[in-house]
Amino acid sequence: MNGAESLVHTLLLGGVDTCFANPGTSEMHFVAALDRIPGMRCVLALFEGVATGAADGYQRMAGKPAATLLHCGPGLANGIANLHNARRARAGIVNIVGDQATYHDPLDPPLASEIESFARPVSAAVLRAARPHLVGGDAARAVAVARGPGGGIATLVLPSDASWDEGGIVAAPLPFEAPYRVADDAVADAATVLRSGKPALILLGGRGTLAEPIASAHAIAAATGAKLIGEGFGARIERGRGRHPLDRVPYVVEMAVEMFRDIREVILVGADEPVTFFAYPGKPGLPFAPGTRLRVLARPDEDAADALARLADAVGARPVPPPDHGPAVSPARGAMTPDAIARTLTALLPEDSIVVDESISAGFPFYSGTERAARHTWLRHVGGAIGIGLPLATGAAIGAPGRRVVTLQGDGSALYTVQALWTQAREKLDVTTVIFANRGYAILRMEMAGVGANPGRTALNMLDVTEPDVDWVKIAEGFGVEAARAETMETFADLLELANRRSGPFLIELVLP
Amino acid sequence: MNGAESLVHTLLLGGVDTCFANPGTSEMHFVAALDRIPGMRCVLALFEGVATGAADGYQRMAGKPAATLLHCGPGLANGIANLHNARRARAGIVNIVGDQATYHDPLDPPLASEIESFARPVSAAVLRAARPHLVGGDAARAVAVARGPGGGIATLVLPSDASWDEGGIVAAPLPFEAPYRVADDAVADAATVLRSGKPALILLGGRGTLAEPIASAHAIAAATGAKLIGEGFGARIERGRGRHPLDRVPYVVEMAVEMFRDIREVILVGADEPVTFFAYPGKPGLPFAPGTRLRVLARPDEDAADALARLADAVGARPVPPPDHGPAVSPARGAMTPDAIARTLTALLPEDSIVVDESISAGFPFYSGTERAARHTWLRHVGGAIGIGLPLATGAAIGAPGRRVVTLQGDGSALYTVQALWTQAREKLDVTTVIFANRGYAILRMEMAGVGANPGRTALNMLDVTEPDVDWVKIAEGFGVEAARAETMETFADLLELANRRSGPFLIELVLP
Repeated sequence: MNGAESLVHTLLLGGVDTCFANPGTSEMHFVAALDRIPGMRCVLALFEGVATGAADGYQRMAGKPAATLLHCGPGLANGIANLHNARRARAGIVNIVGDQATYHDPLDPPLASEIESFARPVSAAVLRAARPHLVGGDAARAVAVARGPGGGIATLVLPSDASWDEGGIVAAPLPFEAPYRVADDAVADAATVLRSGKPALILLGGRGTLAEPIASAHAIAAATGAKLIGEGFGARIERGRGRHPLDRVPYVVEMAVEMFRDIREVILVGADEPVTFFAYPGKPGLPFAPGTRLRVLARPDEDAADALARLADAVGARPVPPPDHGPAVSPARGAMTPDAIARTLTALLPEDSIVVDESISAGFPFYSGTERAARHTWLRHVGGAIGIGLPLATGAAIGAPGRRVVTLQGDGSALYTVQALWTQAREKLDVTTVIFANRGYAILRMEMAGVGANPGRTALNMLDVTEPDVDWVKIAEGFGVEAARAETMETFADLLELANRRSGPFLIELVLP
Repeated sequence: MNGAESLVHTLLLGGVDTCFANPGTSEMHFVAALDRIPGMRCVLALFEGVATGAADGYQRMAGKPAATLLHCGPGLANGIANLHNARRARAGIVNIVGDQATYHDPLDPPLASEIESFARPVSAAVLRAARPHLVGGDAARAVAVARGPGGGIATLVLPSDASWDEGGIVAAPLPFEAPYRVADDAVADAATVLRSGKPALILLGGRGTLAEPIASAHAIAAATGAKLIGEGFGARIERGRGRHPLDRVPYVVEMAVEMFRDIREVILVGADEPVTFFAYPGKPGLPFAPGTRLRVLARPDEDAADALARLADAVGARPVPPPDHGPAVSPARGAMTPDAIARTLTALLPEDSIVVDESISAGFPFYSGTERAARHTWLRHVGGAIGIGLPLATGAAIGAPGRRVVTLQGDGSALYTVQALWTQAREKLDVTTVIFANRGYAILRMEMAGVGANPGRTALNMLDVTEPDVDWVKIAEGFGVEAARAETMETFADLLELANRRSGPFLIELVLP
């Protein structure tokens, strides 16, 4: 057995049975091993950022890590932006990077580079399996890291001779830890704060935004008068009809500050300390008021659902029913506005669909505006590196087969990883992509004002994706995905309904006014 | 004056007047400064790898560095693959990366990351301008590095508050060094070797593959019986009718070994020690025979032309005329073969055109097969990170206005940075792109055999870009570039002639049999 074969066997034993790959020469033995070892689903990506973003989406939905397969330092580099996002989303990924043969690397061949330097900022662990008999053990460690309670990207560097040389040893899975149980003290402390009558806010993030912990948090809020909010960029939120709502910390600094204005106690549940996305001249970097006390009920690697259930008991909270979401709404007609788009989405999101949201500026009202849609899962880009939407949707569709994915996608950000469309076509994934075509980096026009700069013609030229306009229908068709353009709300509704009913991917270019 | 303004002024004073940009929030003050300071041509890229690859192409043709403008760690990461290539091509680039405000970064906002760790492996220098009054001085240093005789990527990290705060100071350009003069000893040593009668080979690279040093090397070879060869992956070679030819070290290991078999003395002129691209089980990593002695006549940062001229004098060499390239050839008709394609290229390459070659496996015979084409410049991908062709062509066209660029591009590699087509359309660049559509990573099918692996169906599925086929005409049109498909040699010739005659970009999808 060679090293590559021991790797595939070890991954499978550890429950990692999906691999998003963009291989090169140094990975050919891994690829060849797939022929001989059944059970690994290998999905080809035409760009590494597609593979890494898909691994993130897969993990968020399947609840277990996928592997990637990338080629040398530059291949890893192409995948870093979405690994950065995955790190911020606390996703677990077994990130396999092929490298030069151990004895060839010192000769400094063209593709040699310092892989570890690229990998370290995005990785919870960086391992290098220098010889075939070490590959299995390192792979088992990588799987354990990626399956850990706090998630984490385990980068496994694999020199080509460690792949092709005989001597591979399959390693048994290491025990992987469940999310840690929150200490009784932390629950008691939170209960004391909530009963004190001080203006308090419960900030949910990470595992705290699944349906059950959100319901517990609503019960606690009803019993104690605490406010309730989700982190600004939540990795996965369960919501829609029959579930409890969860607002989010706003992106715009002034709005976030206003939200926290009267709060004096913040209880963090699976969320990190809130911080504004960027600094702006003269504006605060922390949204909460000076003197506000932050307490951790559950760290991201702790069991938020259990902690909230215990906290609910401690404060004597009783379950509260989800709100009455009222009658079903019909798609919007007439003027194309963000609210009208949200209404159409509300009307047409399929039951148990997965929304992937990289709508950026076009989509600020979409989240709150779709609260009354059928029960669904909302995945957002978390780390701020744009170009995650199409890959994330690709991985989510593979991680949750049978559920429709609806991607709400800004046009500027879609272009970074547009090659994901091809993988959606090849794998016949049930993904509806809605491109919000505002022909530019609209968020940057807003940010330009936010930093106090006043753009002239040259500057605006750097923010507009016009002259020429991108034709999304042609690009989608070029990658093998059927597509159509909507310029009215009526056409948008017709296409969205059509797309969601069919099998396989479809792209709608919604031309914004 | 704020820091961003001092940066733009300093760049301009240093002769850096072109910027390939994909900016974000942290770069808005740089973008705003462009409105107020005339003279900087700012070219928008829709993906960072386009910006960095274009900066490489620009430098190779303009002979001076461009700046990039990238957004935070993930934006830099997206540009790393082509920075890796640029480093191997010894291109100079002023690589500007915006970052979080200095006081915001410690709060670990979503886009914060260790930029330096990403940058270091590809950078000759990494500078961080923490305050506005330091920006100008650091920019001047970065320009000096990038303009140095050995090239080099100078990464300048620019926190957003260093951009927007007042206190910027424009810095005068630092003196930049010309390529160093080779020591007399090195010339004398090379002359002694060449007169010794031992089988010798002169290996040209870097600055040694411009027209004048190649001519000198031919004179030396004729006088001494030495063989002459160019490095396998040359950044810029001047060739075609009226010039001396220069073969290259073959990519295939066995062919390279055969070429070096009888050689005992290798004289390096602007080239590094030759090494095979990858290791393969049981094959050598160095192409030259054991016992071969390597001597450096000129390092890459030394003046190869001057050194060769002096060496020619030392061995009493007389100029030899370029070969008679015979009558002009006509485009090939009939069967589509690599040789036929090379013949059509030979017939139709415009005088003083620039060939950008990322044809990978499809194009092995193109270089030698186009020796008789009109005078032209040949730019090749050097570092082995695929996805350089379309960006390199974009930058070369901007760096050498008035010269037609003809990109010979494999289809698999084109997809990594396909967004470059939009920049070609927006800037109305005279670029003809020929996509060699073999519907897959054909090089990997070859490499699979090279490493001794025997692909089955699952493995082949990772090497084929089929099901669906990519429709290059639609993708090009989607990005605003006119395009057409050729399935016969006759149509290919017609389209190539048409494309090269017109103004602006055009893409030909050549469907290989």
